[in-house]
Amino acid sequence: MATGGLEIEQLIMLLARLPGLGPRSARRAVLHLIKKKEGLMIPLSAALDRAVAAVTVCEVCGNVDTRSPCGICADPRRNESGLLIVVEDVADLWALERAGVGAVKYHVLGGVLSPLDGVGPDDLAIDSLVHRAGEFSEIVLAVNATVEGQTTAHYITDRLQGLGVRVTRLAHGVPVGGELDYLDEGTLSQALKARTAI
Amino acid sequence: MATGGLEIEQLIMLLARLPGLGPRSARRAVLHLIKKKEGLMIPLSAALDRAVAAVTVCEVCGNVDTRSPCGICADPRRNESGLLIVVEDVADLWALERAGVGAVKYHVLGGVLSPLDGVGPDDLAIDSLVHRAGEFSEIVLAVNATVEGQTTAHYITDRLQGLGVRVTRLAHGVPVGGELDYLDEGTLSQALKARTAI
Repeated sequence: MATGGLEIEQLIMLLARLPGLGPRSARRAVLHLIKKKEGLMIPLSAALDRAVAAVTVCEVCGNVDTRSPCGICADPRRNESGLLIVVEDVADLWALERAGVGAVKYHVLGGVLSPLDGVGPDDLAIDSLVHRAGEFSEIVLAVNATVEGQTTAHYITDRLQGLGVRVTRLAHGVPVGGELDYLDEGTLSQALKARTAI
Repeated sequence: MATGGLEIEQLIMLLARLPGLGPRSARRAVLHLIKKKEGLMIPLSAALDRAVAAVTVCEVCGNVDTRSPCGICADPRRNESGLLIVVEDVADLWALERAGVGAVKYHVLGGVLSPLDGVGPDDLAIDSLVHRAGEFSEIVLAVNATVEGQTTAHYITDRLQGLGVRVTRLAHGVPVGGELDYLDEGTLSQALKARTAI
């Protein structure tokens, strides 16, 4: 292939491995980068170098940050609520932070139990969750509403029993702005069961 | 925002400026990079550094490569056909190379004439095309079949008149594997006019 030199081919190949990008969009991205060399390619290269050097995983909660304990774990104001939110992934933690759920702390499991994929309790940050659970008054299991997520939630609930901490899960219901017509029956019946006074 | 440190935020912001990526997919990409730090993030960072240092634009044809003249312009076997293919963009050049169109040479215009966007002949590599056109026996105007593309093709055809070089364009017709039912009338009538013996 004579489409640019080896350096360009390698860059395309690596970018194509990012989620949401394929070979075609990676080529477009690289051409865009080359066109905007001063304004985008060089800053991106520098930002990536800095991130490689700085990024670390928080040893307390599993969040991704430039220090460990991370900014959230190190923030004393976040102790007051006594709320620990357990999530599958750092992306879920970021989503909850964007939603502005308040001065809470998090625990990132790093996945869900999935016997078919060979993911057992030892592959997730469950021991460390049990270890720190006593510091909180309530543990919210904010795992995805999938079969694996619910299995993981049940397993964690069992492990947390006897520690004297309240264990809850997120409410099921109609998404804000959602149309009833497009919702599945499970969500609708849960939303009806959990109806609240206006 | 407490979603990771400043380094991570900057990386997300820059990645979100790539075509095909937005803030959401850039966040996913950065999390994926951090998870695969050794296998993907560090190699990508190194590849980007190398590309920044190596990439240049060919002064003859406008292709992107790690040397100038580029690998295509420097290849003596590509002189034999006497064919010069004029494209709007480097992406089109790459697409033709992937299609294996043979031992041809290229000329990248860097866009199309577009008075509304303030793009005139001087903003495109048209003078340099006229300058090198005499070296070839045929110039193929492989611009997009858009109004701007066709306007540009007409302008270039006018400029090349009197140089004794044959000027052609790509054939219109049914895409290979395409279904007639989904084709627009313009393409269908062109395909019928240009019908060939089986």
